Amino acid sequence: MKYLHTMVRVRDLDASLNFYATLGLREIRRMEHEKGRFTLVYLAAPGDEGAQLELTYNWDVEDYGSARNFGHIAYQVDDIYAICKRLQDAGVTINRPPRDGHMAFVRSPDLISIELLQKGGALPPQEPWVSMPNVGVW
Amino acid sequence: MKYLHTMVRVRDLDASLNFYATLGLREIRRMEHEKGRFTLVYLAAPGDEGAQLELTYNWDVEDYGSARNFGHIAYQVDDIYAICKRLQDAGVTINRPPRDGHMAFVRSPDLISIELLQKGGALPPQEPWVSMPNVGVW
Repeated sequence: MKYLHTMVRVRDLDASLNFYATLGLREIRRMEHEKGRFTLVYLAAPGDEGAQLELTYNWDVEDYGSARNFGHIAYQVDDIYAICKRLQDAGVTINRPPRDGHMAFVRSPDLISIELLQKGGALPPQEPWVSMPNVGVW
Repeated sequence: MKYLHTMVRVRDLDASLNFYATLGLREIRRMEHEKGRFTLVYLAAPGDEGAQLELTYNWDVEDYGSARNFGHIAYQVDDIYAICKRLQDAGVTINRPPRDGHMAFVRSPDLISIELLQKGGALPPQEPWVSMPNVGVW
């Protein structure tokens, strides 16, 4: 038995691809289903292609909402400050900034929470992150 | 960058542990947080401990609901019929039976959809699965 992927539905495929690319995931496979009117895009962290994120884009858009039974998807990252800076520069809200050099939370355009955890534990605390307050929920 | 886990919140920890154990996942780590009044349990498929499922059990129970922005968590399995039989015997509804010997869907006690995919493609079609209708949504 082996983990394959977590699937999330996205309303705006381009917005989601931008978000996840900024996060650091890369597209590894795409399937267009004309008959079913949906597109599947599989993403993964470089070098970790065995654990994928599947985006389902239904061509007929609906509002998917969000709920708390699903919590988040977590990734270990090499430099949590560099990723948060890149996301922030791209206009993504850092809901839980990495004040401790260890953990951050952001949300996808479809309100999927993403947890980022610093590889090796924690980086030394660093501004502007140390002074940055939480924003909203995640 | 590396995938670590997907987190889901559970209302009834025992019911969830039973469900995921029947599915084939094993507990690999547990943390009780007295002050925050929550318990974290990490599960994984045997031999695939790098990709984990994190259960968050808040001691003060709330209704978490479900929404379609989160789709499902997928596992590759060695024998899809054996797993579906085991789940069914434990009282779990097989929402999408493996009629094709390839794919099945069930849902956790907290309505988290789980996709099961047969390793190597598909087993030869087999009763009672071939004749089994879909049940509900997943």
